[in-house]
Amino acid sequence: MIGSKKDPDYLNGVGEVGLVKPKEFVDDTPFQFERGGEITSINLRYETYGQLAADKENAILICHALTGDHHCAGVHSPEDAKPGWWNQVIGPGKAIDTKRFFVICSNCLGACQGSTGPTSVNEATGKTYGISFPELTIGDMVFAQKRLVKHLGIEKLYAVVGGSMGGMQALQWAVSCPELVARTVVIAATTRHNAQTIAFNDVGRAAIQGDPEWNGGDYPSGGGPEVGLAIARMMAHITYLSGKGMEQKFGRSRREQIDGDITKSIEAHFGVEFEVESYLRHQGKTFVSRFDANTYLHLTKALDRFDLHAEKGGLEQSLSRINARTLAVGFTSDWLYTPKQNREIVETLQCLGKDASYAEIDHDFGHDSFLLKSERFHRLIQVFLEGADQRELDRQGSRPDSITRSEAKKEADFRVIDEWVGQGESVLDLGCGRGILLEHLAKAKQVRGLGVDIDIEKVIGCVSRAAPVYQGDVRKTLAGFPDDSFDWIVFSRTMEELNNPCEVIEKALQVAKRVVVSFVNHGYWRNRLHYFLNGSRIINDVYDKAWHERAPINPIAIRDFENFCRERNLVLRRRVCLGGDWKTHCRVLPNLLAGVAIYEVGRD
Amino acid sequence: MIGSKKDPDYLNGVGEVGLVKPKEFVDDTPFQFERGGEITSINLRYETYGQLAADKENAILICHALTGDHHCAGVHSPEDAKPGWWNQVIGPGKAIDTKRFFVICSNCLGACQGSTGPTSVNEATGKTYGISFPELTIGDMVFAQKRLVKHLGIEKLYAVVGGSMGGMQALQWAVSCPELVARTVVIAATTRHNAQTIAFNDVGRAAIQGDPEWNGGDYPSGGGPEVGLAIARMMAHITYLSGKGMEQKFGRSRREQIDGDITKSIEAHFGVEFEVESYLRHQGKTFVSRFDANTYLHLTKALDRFDLHAEKGGLEQSLSRINARTLAVGFTSDWLYTPKQNREIVETLQCLGKDASYAEIDHDFGHDSFLLKSERFHRLIQVFLEGADQRELDRQGSRPDSITRSEAKKEADFRVIDEWVGQGESVLDLGCGRGILLEHLAKAKQVRGLGVDIDIEKVIGCVSRAAPVYQGDVRKTLAGFPDDSFDWIVFSRTMEELNNPCEVIEKALQVAKRVVVSFVNHGYWRNRLHYFLNGSRIINDVYDKAWHERAPINPIAIRDFENFCRERNLVLRRRVCLGGDWKTHCRVLPNLLAGVAIYEVGRD
Repeated sequence: MIGSKKDPDYLNGVGEVGLVKPKEFVDDTPFQFERGGEITSINLRYETYGQLAADKENAILICHALTGDHHCAGVHSPEDAKPGWWNQVIGPGKAIDTKRFFVICSNCLGACQGSTGPTSVNEATGKTYGISFPELTIGDMVFAQKRLVKHLGIEKLYAVVGGSMGGMQALQWAVSCPELVARTVVIAATTRHNAQTIAFNDVGRAAIQGDPEWNGGDYPSGGGPEVGLAIARMMAHITYLSGKGMEQKFGRSRREQIDGDITKSIEAHFGVEFEVESYLRHQGKTFVSRFDANTYLHLTKALDRFDLHAEKGGLEQSLSRINARTLAVGFTSDWLYTPKQNREIVETLQCLGKDASYAEIDHDFGHDSFLLKSERFHRLIQVFLEGADQRELDRQGSRPDSITRSEAKKEADFRVIDEWVGQGESVLDLGCGRGILLEHLAKAKQVRGLGVDIDIEKVIGCVSRAAPVYQGDVRKTLAGFPDDSFDWIVFSRTMEELNNPCEVIEKALQVAKRVVVSFVNHGYWRNRLHYFLNGSRIINDVYDKAWHERAPINPIAIRDFENFCRERNLVLRRRVCLGGDWKTHCRVLPNLLAGVAIYEVGRD
Repeated sequence: MIGSKKDPDYLNGVGEVGLVKPKEFVDDTPFQFERGGEITSINLRYETYGQLAADKENAILICHALTGDHHCAGVHSPEDAKPGWWNQVIGPGKAIDTKRFFVICSNCLGACQGSTGPTSVNEATGKTYGISFPELTIGDMVFAQKRLVKHLGIEKLYAVVGGSMGGMQALQWAVSCPELVARTVVIAATTRHNAQTIAFNDVGRAAIQGDPEWNGGDYPSGGGPEVGLAIARMMAHITYLSGKGMEQKFGRSRREQIDGDITKSIEAHFGVEFEVESYLRHQGKTFVSRFDANTYLHLTKALDRFDLHAEKGGLEQSLSRINARTLAVGFTSDWLYTPKQNREIVETLQCLGKDASYAEIDHDFGHDSFLLKSERFHRLIQVFLEGADQRELDRQGSRPDSITRSEAKKEADFRVIDEWVGQGESVLDLGCGRGILLEHLAKAKQVRGLGVDIDIEKVIGCVSRAAPVYQGDVRKTLAGFPDDSFDWIVFSRTMEELNNPCEVIEKALQVAKRVVVSFVNHGYWRNRLHYFLNGSRIINDVYDKAWHERAPINPIAIRDFENFCRERNLVLRRRVCLGGDWKTHCRVLPNLLAGVAIYEVGRD
């Protein structure tokens, strides 16, 4: 999928890493495996791109997926038809910019592309380790990489980035070596395999082990259970794609017209008929030529056993060690490591008060989406690593004439909220937009903020402002927080869009001590008068659409809101009402005269 | 999953079919296969439950899934621990009531549980057919069953019912033998396999064919590719469940504690560790003992090749032959034959003006949900076959005191619509509720109606009233219809709930010549006065909830609606405004004085 003859010249093109050469890191210190066992020395094959800065603080480590390798950018020779597996992300001026960052990627311990693993020779026996290679964990891979990082003289990684199994390594890095990792990007990953994923892996292993050529793991180099390994790969490959993506790519296209052939042989009947079959069998066949069956068994077991919930205290306990700013990314069509599994990482970190963001990329190609082109996904990674780009800065206050009254008003309630929130408090902003309030509070008052918004563009805006953000539905996200998670929850003109706002406010008052609710006052006299005289709702720069273009909303009047709070014994601690100009304070007859109201609500 | 020792006594229990005996149907007429080939005679093993009525019009044919058989209810001996595979659905007083219906189920042609198939002896050679059995289609299965049905003297089946592969047979029955099928229930099925499903089947076939014991399809009875067949089954079994269902059932439970064992052997490392692995391997093993590999190859190929879109004119052309009332049922968690695939059947039939309904059952257990207990699913089948049950009748007008003013008003606009719609016209009712309007129009004016509602309970209400219904979102459903599909579209108090109603009305006017829009008049004087005086929205029996418990809505005033229609050049052909009592016609100052308005809108 990555690269083709029509792609740019990977060797000499502008914005390309170009020709690269793998390097070898040999470390003669014995390596202890987490689940027991030891080997006397390890070798890691790796590549680097870009220059390590003098202060050595610009290094980004890339972790690869199950069957990936160290070659993630550039080409190995001028004749290479395809560049490394993440070439679209890594390079000068790309999302991971090699003009700025020093990028490292190693083949992981236990793999078979040059690093020490089951296909390596055991010096003690003179034979390859094969199936007797020590039981491997994601932690082992990380500790081996750590030796490489130290060897390169790096004291702190600017970021560790990985997708799929690489995402699990990135997470494990942040958990196991918190002092070494400033940022982590966890893409299309999970904190542990669920039953379905274990089941798929087990079928793959059963196919390998059931192939007589596996022979209990004892097969010659270059031989082995080719059928079993191909079956395992074919099945796994289906789980990397999505139903929709496969349908778009293959549908029911047939490889050749066999329907009209009277002399159909058994071959024709039970052989390859549909394009998708041909594609899959090709995937199986080429995989066998580049991968090793015992390695596949070891690596899938490491994946199945990876479980950040396993220790006492569960996932909270593991993730509580993380110091890195974390970004987790899910893909809508990924059913192997689902959006829900990626969200869980961030939900847990956010409940722990950590700096973590979650974004969800709408992409049709399933788990492998992270390997494909996606402007939004790449921009997300870039702004996480580099901060706001020009596009984002352009949106922000630079053209005052373009600010609508509705935006001016947004700032009006922000000013009030800014007065109320204290130094170093924590704020959950539900319906946070591009994170402008949170950015301001973080800078001005060292507030620990978290935004929630459903819109990916707004989420990217927050990420670029270094405001932790969670892409999701306000109601569901709120429901996931334990009691007393925040000092403040802010609903800045969000409440009107919610179904059954009563429930939401009551839940908010469990999750935070104080809740800010700001809304356009439905009782404002101009709105009333217009409706009274015309029998229709006013259209102005707040209610800027006619009924037939509007989304349904649930307008709130000051009187209704205050009655509700009284009935439910909610304490109105503070109130600011602004007049029709959204500036002047309004102290009399607010339900009639105020254009906007901002409340601090508390518990009884 | 079905049945257990705690279940009721399947032999003697009340409401049970009890002891049953399989029967044999032998037909010596040569059987021609659709894709070529002939065999001299066929045998079908089958069972029946209940009594065939004197008029022979109460017969229901059940079609089984890929690895199912003819034994779908009762037990074969007093010692049987488990009854037939659909015993929870079939029996006296059950969803398919054997006190009323005569139920037939045969092992399909090409299968291996007693009917003619690859394991049968070819009389010409004296050996089993094996892989050389003629290429099989779903059509062949249906034509063989048709012989059985004729043999039983049945001229018209009351219904054909099936799930999964059985659903495809039920659909093929309705397409191929329209004169024989009065009703069809298609459950968790599809009109054709998509690329993902073909891919999974292909991996299964590759596992069988790659097993050396398959030997080109030539293996002794009782032998064969046991490993390959088990692999195929294990993988397929995952596709019958859902990720969520597997997680609930197995999670990451381990079969035995091996983590602490220092002397872990290769067996322990690569053998069965998790419960889900143990379960799957057990599934594979038991499957091998009851199924035949060549049969599996033949049947999965028949499934992959089933394609009701293949002929010229596509799916419309195939389904245009159907005369049967059709009910298609999808399950939310089914990712093998998705809700979308099941919806497609009904969407196409409805576009063709056929009597077809779609219902979606919220169930966590994936494709196999249709084999599990589900009160709603079973009630849906029952009301489709028998009409309204007592529970549904109880809801209908029997307690006049319980009718709210809101319901009275609903009837008020129904009376107007009833006057407008002509004899034999077609009506799409968007937001149809329990189908009361459609039932009335069908009875009084032979109207061809179709309802749309998102709520399964309302959909069941429609099905029980024999009102064709589609369970889905109003906007998306409307978007699926070609232009000029209906004479009328009705929005009876639906419009207020829609986002951007303008688009919806404009689309509706493409799909139908005339559109009825009825709404509560937001301009009504009492509402205005209340708001003017109080600054808050009125609460009464129409707007019966306070702001904090409401869903957002988009209220419409007569003036706004008429202005909008003028701007867009929509023709207001007829208008009925009713006063605040929702009875008296209101002819002056309607925006001020009318409580409700009903419009017929047309194109310019």
